[in-house]
Amino acid sequence: MIDQFAGGNIELSNLQENFSFAGVSCGLKLSGKKDLGAIFCKKKALTFAVFTQNSVAAAPVKISKKRLNKNKFIRAILVNSGNANAATGIDGFNDAIEISKNFSDLIGIEEDEVLLASTGIIGVRLDKSKIISKIPALVDRLTLNNHLDFKESIMTTDRFEKEYFETISSKECGGIYIRAYAKGCGMICPNLATMLVFITSNINADEKILKEMFINCVNKSFNAISVDGDTSTNDSVFFMTDMSCPENTINNREDNLIIEFEKALNRCCIKLANDMVRDGEGSTKILEVRAIGFANEENAKKVASNIAKSTLVKCAFFGSDPNWGRILCAAGNTNLIDEDSVSIKIFDTEVYNKRPINFDKESLSKKISDNERVIIEIYNNSGDKSFTFYGCDLTFDYVKLNSEYST
Amino acid sequence: MIDQFAGGNIELSNLQENFSFAGVSCGLKLSGKKDLGAIFCKKKALTFAVFTQNSVAAAPVKISKKRLNKNKFIRAILVNSGNANAATGIDGFNDAIEISKNFSDLIGIEEDEVLLASTGIIGVRLDKSKIISKIPALVDRLTLNNHLDFKESIMTTDRFEKEYFETISSKECGGIYIRAYAKGCGMICPNLATMLVFITSNINADEKILKEMFINCVNKSFNAISVDGDTSTNDSVFFMTDMSCPENTINNREDNLIIEFEKALNRCCIKLANDMVRDGEGSTKILEVRAIGFANEENAKKVASNIAKSTLVKCAFFGSDPNWGRILCAAGNTNLIDEDSVSIKIFDTEVYNKRPINFDKESLSKKISDNERVIIEIYNNSGDKSFTFYGCDLTFDYVKLNSEYST
Repeated sequence: MIDQFAGGNIELSNLQENFSFAGVSCGLKLSGKKDLGAIFCKKKALTFAVFTQNSVAAAPVKISKKRLNKNKFIRAILVNSGNANAATGIDGFNDAIEISKNFSDLIGIEEDEVLLASTGIIGVRLDKSKIISKIPALVDRLTLNNHLDFKESIMTTDRFEKEYFETISSKECGGIYIRAYAKGCGMICPNLATMLVFITSNINADEKILKEMFINCVNKSFNAISVDGDTSTNDSVFFMTDMSCPENTINNREDNLIIEFEKALNRCCIKLANDMVRDGEGSTKILEVRAIGFANEENAKKVASNIAKSTLVKCAFFGSDPNWGRILCAAGNTNLIDEDSVSIKIFDTEVYNKRPINFDKESLSKKISDNERVIIEIYNNSGDKSFTFYGCDLTFDYVKLNSEYST
Repeated sequence: MIDQFAGGNIELSNLQENFSFAGVSCGLKLSGKKDLGAIFCKKKALTFAVFTQNSVAAAPVKISKKRLNKNKFIRAILVNSGNANAATGIDGFNDAIEISKNFSDLIGIEEDEVLLASTGIIGVRLDKSKIISKIPALVDRLTLNNHLDFKESIMTTDRFEKEYFETISSKECGGIYIRAYAKGCGMICPNLATMLVFITSNINADEKILKEMFINCVNKSFNAISVDGDTSTNDSVFFMTDMSCPENTINNREDNLIIEFEKALNRCCIKLANDMVRDGEGSTKILEVRAIGFANEENAKKVASNIAKSTLVKCAFFGSDPNWGRILCAAGNTNLIDEDSVSIKIFDTEVYNKRPINFDKESLSKKISDNERVIIEIYNNSGDKSFTFYGCDLTFDYVKLNSEYST
């Protein structure tokens, strides 16, 4: 039923996508690489978004939030990399408004039908004239096929592109699709900000159902990862659908297509979130931490995230050290576990069970060393709720990347 | 009036100290260095302590807590380094009880007049026979002068000894003194735990006044530092006084001697806490972060500690980068500041004031590079409360020390 990336049994030629993409270079990046991108929808697209919880939010975040509060039917998103337009005060805010106006006027849509996103250096005003001069070229290039350019234009120091495409067959409309592009979560270079995700689709379902699915998927993916425990000024995740498929709105949460779609959306978000962690600054390993058997999901999340974020745990796994003492200690810092009732596994090896137990340390260390993804499980006995949190190891390269002088 | 370290205008020969100290090697440390220490008081000593908030608490912490709840007049503390006796289950608990009993029996005091502290590897049962066989030698060596041996016996991988001595002249008793020894806060080697502080004095004042002073001083020092954001299984701070000076209990909070004593205790705690940060794993700089102008101290503390604990801030200062964007971003993560109303200083240089401002980056970077202590100030406009939090930079050596395989 589901075909990731390729299309498989769905005739992709029948698939109707109303979104178009573009990416150009406007000169914000000194390298001359693409740094200005846009997504445009032929129709009004139902749009949800979540933004950074940092009170220091960049101008584009403030503007997008405000617009989405007034208007959930959006036509376009304008993105730049190379400059985050964060901590730039009222001047930066006005710059963003002017750029947005220029873009919406040229396309011929309302001002508040445009959302904005920026990523790059913090605290430096962006050169709006560079952006404005390239908006006509950008708008000219808007086609579905130019998603490759878009993908490039949102990157900063990401080591690889992060994308997702999946289709779900449906009797009508040539299939339901999820298409997504993301840029990395690590605040990789000095003053660089951060996580941007753009998901487009044609799913047609009740707004409340869609919003709930979106929030759920975000919480289990983009809100369940950490490279260094810091959230940035610019983090934004957008979901847009033109609601063209199926032809009649699905109002039933239990509808098969909705269930399939939610699974697919979840796969999409988990995949992109994992890509971000894998691309975290200098990281060599993903730490997948599963907290199992808690009274509620919130507690499970606190325990899993405290383990994944502990610098001591992160360093230990960089050194391929199956250091359960640090895992237990990090979990204990939440005050939500009792050492006399928990057990800990690294991959399939039990390393602690209510008290220290013997295990083959050398062989487990070798397994950690041989794998890019390390599975850490902590079992509690206070309920049936679980949460998986994704982190990465802490390496020499992280310190190197983040301590190099910013100019 | 106050004479730190030396005694100055106080005739130290007149100073009466009823505490004695000892330290021996019992073989827990493979190096053969001293690893078993004791403090003993000729009289019952009024004792306060604070312990780790980690729910995974070591056996000695559990036992000391329990005893102090029953009995605040303590005679002795027995300490070992080389093994934390943490996450060792009921066996570890029983080991500690047996060791303690052996010690109290030999000295001839009650079992619950002894407190315990351990530091070293987590999750490995300690060899109690090694400790028990050396207790007679330890007890034999108890004199005031053997504080040098005690100081050595509590260290693990500390790079330097941490101590404090100060006297306050008083008309009677030859002066009031504060004597303190500490071991470092960084969880420096794999599985090593952590912060131990022992403060002795002869101050005689109302219990409530003394306890309040102790808690206040701890909150502004040992609870206001972080090397890597992790608290250990063994953190303990002890304060003991034989209440011999002055001869009459001071019941007045505003008494001059009490005010002088509180200032001195505060200096003692700040000094030792700073020594711990300075000795943090691989650190090259202390970050002294002052959050100023908040509605309450708790908010100020959250902002200051979030800045001091941010790995991005820590890396930036390792690289001598006056990166105010990361400082602002870390502060914003608390949701307690508004970028449009705060200003930030690094040393005396204003680097942000409601919006980015120009400053001489090269010269400020040089100043950071030239100083072991970096002063970071964030000014808010919502009240008159402030808090200072101490952190350190994050260096290659931190990662190296913490990623080396534990065996």
